[in-house]
Amino acid sequence: MPITLEPIGIVHSPYTDTAGMPIQGVFKPGIEACLEVYEAYREGLADLDGFSHAILIYHFHRAARTCLRTQPFLEDVEHGVFATRSPNRPNHLGLSIIRILAVADGRVRFTDVDVLDQTPVLDIKPYVKHFDHRDGTRHGWIDKHFENGPPARTIIEQP
Amino acid sequence: MPITLEPIGIVHSPYTDTAGMPIQGVFKPGIEACLEVYEAYREGLADLDGFSHAILIYHFHRAARTCLRTQPFLEDVEHGVFATRSPNRPNHLGLSIIRILAVADGRVRFTDVDVLDQTPVLDIKPYVKHFDHRDGTRHGWIDKHFENGPPARTIIEQP
Repeated sequence: MPITLEPIGIVHSPYTDTAGMPIQGVFKPGIEACLEVYEAYREGLADLDGFSHAILIYHFHRAARTCLRTQPFLEDVEHGVFATRSPNRPNHLGLSIIRILAVADGRVRFTDVDVLDQTPVLDIKPYVKHFDHRDGTRHGWIDKHFENGPPARTIIEQP
Repeated sequence: MPITLEPIGIVHSPYTDTAGMPIQGVFKPGIEACLEVYEAYREGLADLDGFSHAILIYHFHRAARTCLRTQPFLEDVEHGVFATRSPNRPNHLGLSIIRILAVADGRVRFTDVDVLDQTPVLDIKPYVKHFDHRDGTRHGWIDKHFENGPPARTIIEQP
């Protein structure tokens, strides 16, 4: 049974395509973007300014394909798409953890940006260490890339 | 512009209603559930078994209301819904971090369960400490409840 969602807002980001964008926001923290929440949903932003970080769930609106196996940016072999964060996934749902700079006038200014301009946002959740941190985690094909800290190549060169 | 999604699978959980369910999976880690991924999407599970944890995005299919202000389980005052993890949110999108026990035959057995039986699942993403941990986070109205460790009341008594 299909599920129909309405965007609650839109991202205004300096990244109009993927060139120069990090594969995850933590790898290029200095860039700033803005989430404009639509008028009808703005009341829901009350008290979000007490949180340092939030989780955005959004639609990868520029993802043209859906793959079940895909070659992630860091790899030269394919993996099952649910073992990757690729945008070319069923339902094209994206998730980013943003650092909140300010919440005012229906807008959330943030850094740790890995979201394209004009991305439709479906939900905002507070990031809560008490719920969301896990210790002793294992990360399959990803861990080898982080053995000596973040890998050298975390910024997308070509759109 | 509405966005239409198709569930990729369904959760089989011992929680047929919210009675006895924790407000977040970390607060009652011993219970086991199973995500049955539909046949058409099973190839996407390849390599997920290398990860200890995953993020599920799903539809709060039993959420009957949408509120912009809501009183969270831990509080006796209202907060903006985007500063809470309440199911009664626009688009009724849920997010849980699960601990993976096994991935086989299109099924993901997991613990850290805070998901109702028959929940339609929209996406599975690997949980990756290297991307998903943040240090020095602040959590608005939530922090006071965790000053001395987890609060006493984290299990839902009444549906």
